[in-house]
Amino acid sequence: MDAAIDRNMNKYHRKAMTVEAARELLQSRVRPVEPTEVELAEAIGRRLAAPIRTVEPIPHFRRSGMDGYAIRTADIAHASAALPIELEIIEHIPCGKEPLYSITEGKAARIMTGGMVPDGADAVIMQEMTEAVEHNGRSIVRIQKKIAPGLNITPIGEEAGEGTLVIEAGEKLGAGHTAILAALGYNRVPVYRKPKVAVLSTGTELLRLTDPLQMGKIRNSNAYMLMAQIIAAGAQPLLVGQIPDDYPKAERMLYDLLASDADLIVTSGGVSVGDYDSMADFFLRWEGTTLFNKIAMRPGSPTTAGAWKDKLLFGLSGNPSACFVGFELFVRPVIQQLQGAVVDTAKTVTCLLAADYEKVNAYTRYVRGQWYSSGGNHYAKPVGRDKSSTILSLKDANCLIVIPPTKTGIVSGEIVQIIPLDGALIV
Amino acid sequence: MDAAIDRNMNKYHRKAMTVEAARELLQSRVRPVEPTEVELAEAIGRRLAAPIRTVEPIPHFRRSGMDGYAIRTADIAHASAALPIELEIIEHIPCGKEPLYSITEGKAARIMTGGMVPDGADAVIMQEMTEAVEHNGRSIVRIQKKIAPGLNITPIGEEAGEGTLVIEAGEKLGAGHTAILAALGYNRVPVYRKPKVAVLSTGTELLRLTDPLQMGKIRNSNAYMLMAQIIAAGAQPLLVGQIPDDYPKAERMLYDLLASDADLIVTSGGVSVGDYDSMADFFLRWEGTTLFNKIAMRPGSPTTAGAWKDKLLFGLSGNPSACFVGFELFVRPVIQQLQGAVVDTAKTVTCLLAADYEKVNAYTRYVRGQWYSSGGNHYAKPVGRDKSSTILSLKDANCLIVIPPTKTGIVSGEIVQIIPLDGALIV
Repeated sequence: MDAAIDRNMNKYHRKAMTVEAARELLQSRVRPVEPTEVELAEAIGRRLAAPIRTVEPIPHFRRSGMDGYAIRTADIAHASAALPIELEIIEHIPCGKEPLYSITEGKAARIMTGGMVPDGADAVIMQEMTEAVEHNGRSIVRIQKKIAPGLNITPIGEEAGEGTLVIEAGEKLGAGHTAILAALGYNRVPVYRKPKVAVLSTGTELLRLTDPLQMGKIRNSNAYMLMAQIIAAGAQPLLVGQIPDDYPKAERMLYDLLASDADLIVTSGGVSVGDYDSMADFFLRWEGTTLFNKIAMRPGSPTTAGAWKDKLLFGLSGNPSACFVGFELFVRPVIQQLQGAVVDTAKTVTCLLAADYEKVNAYTRYVRGQWYSSGGNHYAKPVGRDKSSTILSLKDANCLIVIPPTKTGIVSGEIVQIIPLDGALIV
Repeated sequence: MDAAIDRNMNKYHRKAMTVEAARELLQSRVRPVEPTEVELAEAIGRRLAAPIRTVEPIPHFRRSGMDGYAIRTADIAHASAALPIELEIIEHIPCGKEPLYSITEGKAARIMTGGMVPDGADAVIMQEMTEAVEHNGRSIVRIQKKIAPGLNITPIGEEAGEGTLVIEAGEKLGAGHTAILAALGYNRVPVYRKPKVAVLSTGTELLRLTDPLQMGKIRNSNAYMLMAQIIAAGAQPLLVGQIPDDYPKAERMLYDLLASDADLIVTSGGVSVGDYDSMADFFLRWEGTTLFNKIAMRPGSPTTAGAWKDKLLFGLSGNPSACFVGFELFVRPVIQQLQGAVVDTAKTVTCLLAADYEKVNAYTRYVRGQWYSSGGNHYAKPVGRDKSSTILSLKDANCLIVIPPTKTGIVSGEIVQIIPLDGALIV
């Protein structure tokens, strides 16, 4: 338990932590889940649990880069249009075939792109620069121009030597990684298993999806939003449901989950200072360590997190936008780290603000925004109403714009940091 | 069948089509697959098959934006520190509870953030601006300052009125969309089914994943790379395997697939003018319409596509980078359109080229690149060796840099278009 952290932070007199400090504190707490091994096709999109090295050099044979003829450049050193050189074609080498013969003086082999260059040859001359003729029953290639040694031949190991590190552990397997793993013969791949993330909601105002609306009540949208965010982060969401109003029951449910095989627990709602904030009460009384219960940001300042043994419990705000932002800033990196990712929380993307932002605040604001490019510059502008209870504008945002604390607002054209959201700018 | 299109294009004398014309031609041919209906949790990441409108206004009741007291602003119009106004607290209104009473002169109700504002009240004063006291057994709130009418109350329908279009058909369901669908009570969601995309490879040089390397042969990496790209585009890959060397068998296999329930067929390899290019031969002789067999681009100029009845068949190049680029430019938009997406192929992202690009070409080049931001500008620089047979650098690319035809190369600092790849810039 960290001596520096108040074990049970006061519900009313909270000390705000910066976003950066909170992210670092979380990062220091997370260990990856166990590795497992899956078929290559299933590994797509997962994170690698071990570094991948080449076993053989790539390529492992001299490879032709053209359809043409494997030749000795010395043989055609004096070729010209007036005095073309004729070489005897001794073999056809398609892709996949090991050549039968070496190329000796006056000989050539027809070869396809990707084919194995025979010994003796030191270049491949492209088909379009040659003329094939039959001559007394012999196949001949006629060449009018010399070429440089090595031309159109990829040497052994040009891409990578034997034992080269080609993919680091923790990397997410995209199309390029998948191609490499296939080329290296990985039919089974070491990846981290998908972390299980339990999702709960608090609030007597929440109706189930199938319930008709009632006065004063709303349907539970945060739990489904969090599911989508958890899936996008590469984990498996477990929709647990509602935290009971009854405190002893709520407490039992949370301890049961903390002791379950869920790797992470995320709740929404009940973290502020209202009379009915069950999560705030739980974090006040529980046997775990509350890491923070106030963040110097808007929306989502009452965002809370704690550790119970090795497990993290997040209490996100119940306001949809605050819940969304709290997830993106704090929960997403934890889920990535649980899968072995090396998360650089200092990595940023810069844009020019495309509209004046007039709202002032003592805290950093994370504003839903649209990010676009024009003339080599990248711009970001706020979308929708900047109210934390607004859910409609969430779907229009492809980034969060980071508005630092300011007493005067920020004018159009100033540089701002943004946090791109999933799928941002993908055409 | 389009009269404008040569039915069987010549294998050797191909006419190059621009990337833009080829994309438009494909776009005009694609119709979405059938819609289906799935549980909301399963709909995440899929594309909507029908527009979504609100049934009730959002919010459907006057909602408090603060923890505090619902009051009549008229009652506190003359409140001051010297002469605070006292109001009787007649009710506690947590979230989810319909108020029992209206607020009349001299009365107030304690209310939580998200709670339903009672009739008669025209503002909510935040808790921190008040003092609650007990007075002769009555609960009293003491207020020292007037506030404006409407403060901290979200009016009915502020986010959206009844019957407002909130999500268009064809949109991909991210976290924000999922939240909206949950709030509107969609436990089942109309989405397009996942298109089935058959993947085949040609080439006698290809080993299976589990085969040991042999001289002249390589393992089949394109098929797995394409699977990853197909999954990222939202479709379901079907790994069919190898197209037989024997032409009649290859032809039968392709016709069987064209008649199968696969929505799209993608092959890699065998499209150039080599002696063993089975796909080029198939496109020459088949009963479908070849839409193009040469694209004015590098890599991947022999990229070929054709239509057989309503089904598209792609012959991508066998070189890994050319195969990758061919998929991103031509197959990805088709897969998106099969799921109802409105694809804007003219949408671009601009960057500044971060390094001189000296290679000249008569055709547009799509160069694997890394895209990053610095000081409000966005830069892109080529990664790895720009050879189409290179697979290692594919994993390091987060964009394709579009290098237009040029006789002099392009210097650092010039504006270029890029095509972001999946996950680009996502921290």
